[in-house]
Formats: sequence, C-alpha cells, structure tokens
Amino acid sequence: MDSFQEFSKQFEERFNVRHFPTHTPTLYNPAQYILGIKGKRIRPICVYLANEMFATINDDAYHAAASIELFHNFSLIHDDIMDKAPLRRGIDTVHHKYGENTALLAGDVMFVKAYENLAKISKPYLHRCIDIFNKTAAEVCEGQQLDMDFENMEQVSFDEYVNMVTLKTSVLVAASLQIGAVIGGAGLGNQDHLYEFGKNLGIAFQIQDDYLDAFGDATKTGKQQGGDIIANKKTFLMIHARAFCNVEENAELDLLIKENPLNKVEKVLQIFKNCKADQWATELKEKYYNLALKHLEEVAVISERKLMLKKLAEDLMQREK
Amino acid sequence: MDSFQEFSKQFEERFNVRHFPTHTPTLYNPAQYILGIKGKRIRPICVYLANEMFATINDDAYHAAASIELFHNFSLIHDDIMDKAPLRRGIDTVHHKYGENTALLAGDVMFVKAYENLAKISKPYLHRCIDIFNKTAAEVCEGQQLDMDFENMEQVSFDEYVNMVTLKTSVLVAASLQIGAVIGGAGLGNQDHLYEFGKNLGIAFQIQDDYLDAFGDATKTGKQQGGDIIANKKTFLMIHARAFCNVEENAELDLLIKENPLNKVEKVLQIFKNCKADQWATELKEKYYNLALKHLEEVAVISERKLMLKKLAEDLMQREK
Repeated sequence: MDSFQEFSKQFEERFNVRHFPTHTPTLYNPAQYILGIKGKRIRPICVYLANEMFATINDDAYHAAASIELFHNFSLIHDDIMDKAPLRRGIDTVHHKYGENTALLAGDVMFVKAYENLAKISKPYLHRCIDIFNKTAAEVCEGQQLDMDFENMEQVSFDEYVNMVTLKTSVLVAASLQIGAVIGGAGLGNQDHLYEFGKNLGIAFQIQDDYLDAFGDATKTGKQQGGDIIANKKTFLMIHARAFCNVEENAELDLLIKENPLNKVEKVLQIFKNCKADQWATELKEKYYNLALKHLEEVAVISERKLMLKKLAEDLMQREK
Repeated sequence: MDSFQEFSKQFEERFNVRHFPTHTPTLYNPAQYILGIKGKRIRPICVYLANEMFATINDDAYHAAASIELFHNFSLIHDDIMDKAPLRRGIDTVHHKYGENTALLAGDVMFVKAYENLAKISKPYLHRCIDIFNKTAAEVCEGQQLDMDFENMEQVSFDEYVNMVTLKTSVLVAASLQIGAVIGGAGLGNQDHLYEFGKNLGIAFQIQDDYLDAFGDATKTGKQQGGDIIANKKTFLMIHARAFCNVEENAELDLLIKENPLNKVEKVLQIFKNCKADQWATELKEKYYNLALKHLEEVAVISERKLMLKKLAEDLMQREK
C-alpha cells in the first residue's frame, strides 16, 4: 500500500501544472496564482484514499481529485473577497493582489475548470459523480451564507452552528471520500459510510480548530491566541458558554463584546473555563471523531485497507496547529 | 410549425417556477429574485428553434434551455456587481437589493443550478453538451475580463473589440443554437453552421446596440441618447472614429473625454458623422448579418425548417430598441 506522502506526491506531480490557457493573462494568471499557494491538499488525498480502498488508483481518481481541489480554490477566492481577507497562508489573496472584479471572475473560471475536470471521469461513474458534486457545491454556498447570516444574529444555537460547519467545511471532505469510493466501484452502502466518516471527521476538525484558536499554543499554531474572540466569532466554545454560563457571566460577555477592552481575550477565556467549555469541546470532538470511526468500521472491506484513512483521522485530531 | 411566441410560452410555463429550495432563504431568495426580472429569453428560444430544425422538442431541449438561461442569469448577477449597476430593466440588481456578498454567492449557486439542469440531458448527448457548455462558460468570463481590461487601455483595435464582443455576448447565443442542434441529433457540420450563424448574428446585434445608443431614437430605446459616449465606452463607433477621423478630431475626442463638457454627446456625434462612422456601422452590421444568413443557408435541412430562425434574425436586426 502506498504511503500518505506518496499519494500526496502522486497528485501534486500531475496537478502542479498550468491549468489555464496562456491567452487572456489578466484573467487566467490570477486564477493560476492561487493554485501556487499550496494547501494541504486534504480533499484530493481523500479521493485517492477512498478510491484505493476498492481499486487501484487510476485516471478517474486524478480527474475527480483535481476537480475537487479546483472547486475548493474557487470557494477560497470568493470567500476571501467576502471576508475582505488580505492574506492567505501569509501570501496576498487574489482580490488583494488583482482587485475584486478580477478575483470574482477568476473564481468563476476556476469553477468552470473544476467542471471540465469532472467531465473527464469515465462514463459509468460520471453521472453519479456530477450529482454528488452539484449537491455538495450548493451546500458549500449555503454554509458560507449561513456563516455570514450568523454575524448579524444575536444568538446561534448549537444545532445551527453544527449545521453551518457541516455545510461550509465538512461536506466537501465527505464528498471527496464518497466520489473516491464511487469511481472505485464501491456499493451504495460503502459510499454512504465513507461520506458519514468524512462529515463527522470534518465536524471534529472544526471543533479542534475552535479549541486551538482559544487554548492552543500560539508558538505552534502560528496564529494570535484568541483571534476568534477578538473577531467576536460565534464558535463552538462561545455558543456553549452562552448557553451554560450564569447570568452575570453572560452580561460580562455582552460588555466585553461591546467595549472590546485590551484584556478581552483573557476575560473571555476565564469565562470559557468557568463553564468548562474547554473540557466540553474536547469531549465533543471525541464524540464526532468516534462517530466517524464507527462509520469507517462499517465499510465492508478488510481492516488493512482502512489503515490509511484511520491514520489520516488520527493525524488531524492530534494536530496542535 | 409552432410560432416563436408559442415556443416562448412553452419555455416560460415550465421555467417560471421556484428553482431553489425553500430553506436558506437568505441565499436562495436573492437567486430566485433575478429570475423574476424577465428578459427576452432569447437563448432558451434559440435552443428550441435549433432543436426543432432536426427533431420534435423534447425534455432535453427544456433542460438545456433552462441550464443556459440560468447560466445567463448567473453572469448577469456577477456582471452587475462588477459594473456596480444599481438597476437592471428598471428593477434593483441583486447586489443593490441584498448586498454584494450575498449576490456573489447567489450567482455561484445559480451556476451550480445551471449544471444541475445540464446534467439532466439524456446520456447520448450529455457529454457533448457539457463540453460546449464549459468552453462557452470560460469564454464568457474571458469576454467580461477583456471588457474590463479595455477600460484601462488607451486604444482598442477593431479586431480586439470584435473578439471581446464575440466572447462576452455572441458565443452564448451560438452555443444555445449548437446545443439545440446536438440534442436534435444533428451532425457536426450542421452544429457548426448553426454555431457560426449565432456567433455572427450576435456580433451584428452588438453593432446595432452600439449604433442605437448613439443614433437611436431615445423615445424608442428608452435609454438616454449617447449613454456610451458619456461613459467613455470604446464602442464600434468610437473605435472606427479613432482610426479614421483626422488628427484634429482625434485631439478633440481626447479633450472631450478628459473634460466631459455638457455638449460632449453632441460634439462626439458630430465627429462620428464626419468620419461616416454611422454609415460604416450600418454596413458592418449588414456584413455580419449576411455572414450569419450564409451559415444558416448551409444547414442541411429543407428551407421551410429555417424560416423561424431567419425571422428571429430579421427581428433582431430591425429592432429600434
């Protein structure tokens, strides 16, 4: 069995080319530019890992993986415009470097390119992959809209937040695994279990993300501690605190958000600790992680073939950054 | 043979429904909203007309027509953001009514919906339709980018302008006809002739558009006369004038653009007339119109089956608004 790094290398070697024509450089250079800001390529690797559970990696796996990575980059370009983010991984975002209008169009044409790659999948699997892709693409848009809606809402419930996170980040990981399974010739049951594995793993990942932002070691995360607190984000921790801290603490949170004092992070973290939000988040993460593993167990292939996905899940959970 | 109006009615009856889920209304209501600003539905009707040349209109024609109309509306939402346009057909644009971020996402999800409809086309035609659709979608993005690029260029050549117009507006009409032919079972030669018919008709249409903006009767067009002149747009007329008027007139154009005097429209129109840009544009329009008709003649079906497309072309050319 190939190693995780080998899959990553295998994908990267083929993907790391110019995906766009050389004409109309004012449109295509900005689109190509973001592909150079290399991410972890988690989604393409999920396609490969799920595919490899059922079959030998073939061209279809690459086309699907490339399509999903291009879609992911399309969503990053547009999200960065909406969030007015100047930087991504320490490098200028597309709209910051080339202007909002060009970034909007570069995103659009990246989306077309994602579909172009998707259309290369062999005919027996194409229709099912398009259906999963379209459903997921719409859900990612819904998730981003809900995230924006939450900014203007006084209170967000736990269920609403889980739903938003699922749509905004988890379903694309889930769909990557599902599509990998489809083109591996897996049956519907196995496809669904891999989807649920990815979905629950994605939620656990986001809980970890929220936790690290508040309680992580800044020297390891490379981010300012309490960034979400400063930005008044409604994270898992904040939603728990709002529901379980006492009346006085809730009033204090209102005041801290309103007045933005210098010791805001420290004060909010204290309230999080008072209502045991840190401990609760750790347990919640474990709950979703275990749910994910349960679905992986249900996939009807021999255990050996699940080892790499299990390892991926473990790595994502144990990360400190 | 059905009449043009009957096709239009047939499409509208099926298309005039809610295309989006009722959940996440903050995303989907803005997307549905623009579909209510009804346009001329020229593209879907082109699908029907081309399809009807070779076969009886069936479900595939609707799916293709709906997909193209949704794609067209996606591009309108994003174009309006880029152009900062407050109104479309006298009604609030999506971003003006719901904010830029939501409009951006509503456009994205409209694009997904276009692909969802496209994917409903029967398997024998699906792949070819997806290829045409993807090629065209990328070209429309290129056209919009070139249009933006032109704003910052001192001079734009005739060929550059024809290329931009072709990409921005003609290829989608051309692709509508081509896809209609594909799902009617037409051969490659006929598909290509219909594509070229649509492409050249689209260029003739744009020349007419530029002409009417300058020389049309404002009481008929419903637009301010010389809107393009006021906005310093590089139209067919302006590009011709720049190339064929004398040195003094070119200097006067520079000054008029720089100083924006009250009598700018009147002065520019005089220069257009001096270098016979009006007469040239009329002849140029005829040239592309005749080229379009020549391709229509080449389509290997009996003449009777071409009458409605011929009528459509005539109507578009004789319009005064």
